[in-house]
Amino acid sequence: MIKHALDTPFSFKVNSTASDCAARRGCLTTGHGIIETPVFMPVGTVGTVKAVTFESVWETGARIILGNTYHLYLRPGHELIQRMGGLHKFQGWDGALLTDSAGFQVFSLNELNKITEDGVEFRSHLDGSKHFFSPEVSMAAQLNIGADIIMAFDQCAAYGVGKQEVEAALDRTSRWLVRCKDVFDGRIFLDGWQRVLFGIMQGGIYEDLRRRSATQIVDLDLPGYAVGGLSVGEPIEAMREITELAAGLLPRDKARYLMGVGFPDDIVASVEMGIDMFDCVLPTRMARTGTVLTRDGRLVVKNQENAEDHGPIDAECGCPVCARHSRGYIRHLFKASEILGPTLATMHNLFFYQELMAGIRGALEAGGFKPFAREVTRRWQEGEMARLERVDKRLPGGRKGRL
Amino acid sequence: MIKHALDTPFSFKVNSTASDCAARRGCLTTGHGIIETPVFMPVGTVGTVKAVTFESVWETGARIILGNTYHLYLRPGHELIQRMGGLHKFQGWDGALLTDSAGFQVFSLNELNKITEDGVEFRSHLDGSKHFFSPEVSMAAQLNIGADIIMAFDQCAAYGVGKQEVEAALDRTSRWLVRCKDVFDGRIFLDGWQRVLFGIMQGGIYEDLRRRSATQIVDLDLPGYAVGGLSVGEPIEAMREITELAAGLLPRDKARYLMGVGFPDDIVASVEMGIDMFDCVLPTRMARTGTVLTRDGRLVVKNQENAEDHGPIDAECGCPVCARHSRGYIRHLFKASEILGPTLATMHNLFFYQELMAGIRGALEAGGFKPFAREVTRRWQEGEMARLERVDKRLPGGRKGRL
Repeated sequence: MIKHALDTPFSFKVNSTASDCAARRGCLTTGHGIIETPVFMPVGTVGTVKAVTFESVWETGARIILGNTYHLYLRPGHELIQRMGGLHKFQGWDGALLTDSAGFQVFSLNELNKITEDGVEFRSHLDGSKHFFSPEVSMAAQLNIGADIIMAFDQCAAYGVGKQEVEAALDRTSRWLVRCKDVFDGRIFLDGWQRVLFGIMQGGIYEDLRRRSATQIVDLDLPGYAVGGLSVGEPIEAMREITELAAGLLPRDKARYLMGVGFPDDIVASVEMGIDMFDCVLPTRMARTGTVLTRDGRLVVKNQENAEDHGPIDAECGCPVCARHSRGYIRHLFKASEILGPTLATMHNLFFYQELMAGIRGALEAGGFKPFAREVTRRWQEGEMARLERVDKRLPGGRKGRL
Repeated sequence: MIKHALDTPFSFKVNSTASDCAARRGCLTTGHGIIETPVFMPVGTVGTVKAVTFESVWETGARIILGNTYHLYLRPGHELIQRMGGLHKFQGWDGALLTDSAGFQVFSLNELNKITEDGVEFRSHLDGSKHFFSPEVSMAAQLNIGADIIMAFDQCAAYGVGKQEVEAALDRTSRWLVRCKDVFDGRIFLDGWQRVLFGIMQGGIYEDLRRRSATQIVDLDLPGYAVGGLSVGEPIEAMREITELAAGLLPRDKARYLMGVGFPDDIVASVEMGIDMFDCVLPTRMARTGTVLTRDGRLVVKNQENAEDHGPIDAECGCPVCARHSRGYIRHLFKASEILGPTLATMHNLFFYQELMAGIRGALEAGGFKPFAREVTRRWQEGEMARLERVDKRLPGGRKGRL
């Protein structure tokens, strides 16, 4: 692994824009390395990208990963992480780090949370203990954790609530963003490298609310903005529509981050609309339950039908797992509940996403993007349709839906 | 990883003997690489060295690992492994492989087994299903699995049974060895490389029975012999005494393998007596429960006292885990039940054993062995005593004994 010690201030640059759509090829310069965009950030929830070593994460090509402030706050605690030298050092990751604000988790993992203008009272999903998060607490925790990119504390309205509630949440998110910036501003340079604060746009599936949110947060002139509140249950068409709108509302010279997305077809569609950054638990979480990704859709590798399959997970994949191991072997590992099953599946899935992003960047460097996006989407969706038809035939109950 | 394709027949050579004891420096030549002895073989029970990739196992320096015929027979089945190209290919391990005979497991994992001269009827520890193992079944299974070194099917008498029972088991083991050799002899060259059959000495803690067993098995002129029936509950002094006797009874020009041993002090003591090969689940099994090895005894890394320890597991260790991660971080991983905890602990423990063996071989190359053995033993035992004293102080119930 390469050690980075850049004194360069943080920057985001768009190197080129596609000739046929809003997709951009760019790079983020951080105190822990340069990140080529569009980028997918593997999720390292609680100090580890689950089931794999950081050497493996690095080998997949990932140069930035995400840490979850909510989980790290509860265990091992942000003060401990700070005393241990910050999260980069604590977990032994030399690449860049982004931490979320805990906003999403305190709302999604806690049904009993109490929201006031001051912040949110919630209960730990681990032991039920009471905690309080606010813009100030989130900033303090994230500054202790010490990521390169720190996310504002936001309120994410659940999908399906009324428009008034979505509006109240976005307005509060904007007011909280000002408080986050106030805490953050004095602390951007620590240990010789610059940290940056990204704002989060809310507004659900409402065009006018998205416009309102954009106006409020863009005003603060932050180096990057995230599109929050999507991929939370809304129809796929609404997600696509709002992503396109949101990307267009955000400044061209700032990094655009679509939080918690998604499947390969979601990613190419969003890149096409001008999104630069992604994160999602999908490759890691699915891997641990025995589902792996191929260019032609998902493969439930733990299924009996793979027991004597000599072939790799994906014949076109360049990852070390596909070079060495058969579907039959990986199926055996899951069947025998061996830790190596989730480990190999995770390595492959992470590599798959990094190869997808490398393909996206390669297409953008060549000029046009749409033909590449169409082909990725066609293969993925045809594979998924075929898989769902097989599920329909096998299970009288029929397909289980998207995930 | 280096691919081996040797047409060289199997051989074992003693390169030198220590000036001050019976320790030997040698090498095993197999169809899957040359193994420097004395050697420690990590245990890869059911097609994986638990919790680590084969790349990691290779990186520790291990060039031979052990597979468990009993576990592989039950899952995924030896015929499936054979159809998938044998265990080397199935699991993706380019080094050498040794399989045990399932003898030890059918006796130790099954209280309800029925032993006759023909073989053993036992129940699966997985689902209670009935199975039958005999010398012929064990050979067929091991030949399908396709290891480089195949162990004879033996009967291991439990510690504490009467001498007559031990005698009957050793005599039966010798008769079964003849049957194993009969099945095996026509099948030594397959796929261009040679497999070999090792015999197993039994006889419990009885000197006369060990002599009797040795006479019976040495007569068959096999390329290697294992000392079985030790480390099954007998006092440490008896284990040492019988190991020394057994090593002396086995031919000087054949590989000597002490099965299921042991702690670092056991290993150096046994090398001193002329043992060449070891295997033990200790480094892998302890790792998964949060115990790691240091030159100064065991460390229960998951304990609270390590929560803010910035230091590596063992400051003298050259492994990638100690280079990158602190005790505090590894403790956090165990506390949060993250898979990476067992993975990193296993990587370290396996590396620790390979470093121990490299140290042993280095000392032997330099001439004398006893000073090296004494120093390893002193540090290990002093560390263990200090650890047990701490346990005594902490727990009113006092120390829990050796493991």
